[in-house]
Amino acid sequence: MSDTETLVRGILDGDRISVSRAISVIENDLYSDRALRILEGINPRTGNAHVIGITGPPGVGKSTLIGAMVPRIAVDDRKVAVVAIDASSPFSKGSILGNRIRMQESLTRHGIFMRSLSSRGLSGGLSFSALGTIKILDAAGFDTIILETVGSGQADLDVMLLASTIVVVLAPGLGDEIQAIKAGIMEIAHIFVVNKLDREGAFQAIKDIEDVLATASQGEWKVPVIGVSASNGDGLDDLNSAIGKHAEYQARHRDRRSSVRMELNLIVESEIMKALRNAIEEDSRVTGIIDDVSSGARDPFQGSRMIMGALSQRIAGKK
Amino acid sequence: MSDTETLVRGILDGDRISVSRAISVIENDLYSDRALRILEGINPRTGNAHVIGITGPPGVGKSTLIGAMVPRIAVDDRKVAVVAIDASSPFSKGSILGNRIRMQESLTRHGIFMRSLSSRGLSGGLSFSALGTIKILDAAGFDTIILETVGSGQADLDVMLLASTIVVVLAPGLGDEIQAIKAGIMEIAHIFVVNKLDREGAFQAIKDIEDVLATASQGEWKVPVIGVSASNGDGLDDLNSAIGKHAEYQARHRDRRSSVRMELNLIVESEIMKALRNAIEEDSRVTGIIDDVSSGARDPFQGSRMIMGALSQRIAGKK
Repeated sequence: MSDTETLVRGILDGDRISVSRAISVIENDLYSDRALRILEGINPRTGNAHVIGITGPPGVGKSTLIGAMVPRIAVDDRKVAVVAIDASSPFSKGSILGNRIRMQESLTRHGIFMRSLSSRGLSGGLSFSALGTIKILDAAGFDTIILETVGSGQADLDVMLLASTIVVVLAPGLGDEIQAIKAGIMEIAHIFVVNKLDREGAFQAIKDIEDVLATASQGEWKVPVIGVSASNGDGLDDLNSAIGKHAEYQARHRDRRSSVRMELNLIVESEIMKALRNAIEEDSRVTGIIDDVSSGARDPFQGSRMIMGALSQRIAGKK
Repeated sequence: MSDTETLVRGILDGDRISVSRAISVIENDLYSDRALRILEGINPRTGNAHVIGITGPPGVGKSTLIGAMVPRIAVDDRKVAVVAIDASSPFSKGSILGNRIRMQESLTRHGIFMRSLSSRGLSGGLSFSALGTIKILDAAGFDTIILETVGSGQADLDVMLLASTIVVVLAPGLGDEIQAIKAGIMEIAHIFVVNKLDREGAFQAIKDIEDVLATASQGEWKVPVIGVSASNGDGLDDLNSAIGKHAEYQARHRDRRSSVRMELNLIVESEIMKALRNAIEEDSRVTGIIDDVSSGARDPFQGSRMIMGALSQRIAGKK
């Protein structure tokens, strides 16, 4: 068996070391043939996990909330994995990392699989590595996959679209509850959580969010706003029940075509980006065009059309 | 004259309304033919502006610094434009916006052109719209273009690579000066600024950064660390002089080929993403493949290879 086949076999057997190694392959070598072959190998065994996305601004207590929710989700032998996305900032604060580490220690004690993913400088690649990670965990038999992002940019929010239940966490006193809802979060949130319920302004924050929701056109799923206190446990059962209800709702209404469309888009985008990078590095026609534009012999738009021509031949060769 | 030709003519005449309208075309309809035709039309008149990138974590006083620097840069009839990139957060704080508004009011009073750009939900598109905006301002005769990002994600940092002089701003007491340098900022910074020089820890922060820089292999350009106080003006002349020196250094050492390569990459990426989006929306072969994958008749990897085949034909047709 090839190394890749061994890895695929290990994943399907639920072996955590294989799972970790496979995720590293995807993360480190995003557009490699090996990454795609692993995903292709496990694909028939995917499609069963419930993916819960949890996002919100820094400081609202997402890690604490996840730490408190996981024991409630991991009942009846349900296997749970947590994937923390670190698209955040090249300037990110140490405190975020600290919370993550505390969450990880607590989760690991409970036998929960926990993994951090970073973007490694490839903008746009984060959704693809998150998709790959979800598929690997799904194929390894995890029933619930929790995807956490710090909501610090569009790339973070794009990752949320991979989840079938999206929970947006806010907290009182941040002063941006309403801005958050206005900024396009409304369209993607299935559940709102106001954490730190014991703090001043919590009930006002809940009301503010409900008011905005009331004015928006909603579908059949009515987005609930749930007050919780992750630290003392208040409201966590309500949240768990809302997540369960949304999972049932999704199972009935799931738009398989739209998630397939997104998935195909990500795979094709990755393949093309790989082809483009390779072409710019090594294709002599393309490097010649770059030289011509650099010397002023061609304008960049003429040059880019010529590169597209060369690239289409390379892509066509991959059919 | 077509509407696009009128716009191009207006830009080349330095008409600010045409400049604003053209930037809106790029921003709102990133991958449109019209956006590309505008850029193509103005291209022969670009390549003269000095682009200064200013980045750093929220709260270090970037907007105040820019407000204070601009009158020093806009001497001898130099025309200055400021482009503030808002890739930041869907959850971004109102205070950032407030600082920007104050900066804008101050700049507008001094006749400086100021524009904010947001990512509008298209990850990866930000660099392209920033590139387009720089080209428009360059063609309109602006001598110096200041590009500000809040450094909240990889997309933000990618935009910085469009600048020929990159200034990274930090402040004491954020506790992440050194992390910032470690996180890959080192490679892109040409000048470090420690703002809020009057605060405790400012000189230690300068020393810490200098220590890290001393251990790194640097090229011919020695990265200076400059303490400033944007609010009372201390150090701003030093910063202005360092920016000037770097501009001269860049003029001598400019790697035209590498910036052309990045530019071609962005244009081709935009063109391909446009072709991919269109193909997924409207190409009956592609929508048929999506149907097959949705029904389970094909696996997504087989499906994506077929989409690549269809796409390569569409791209080839654009040659």
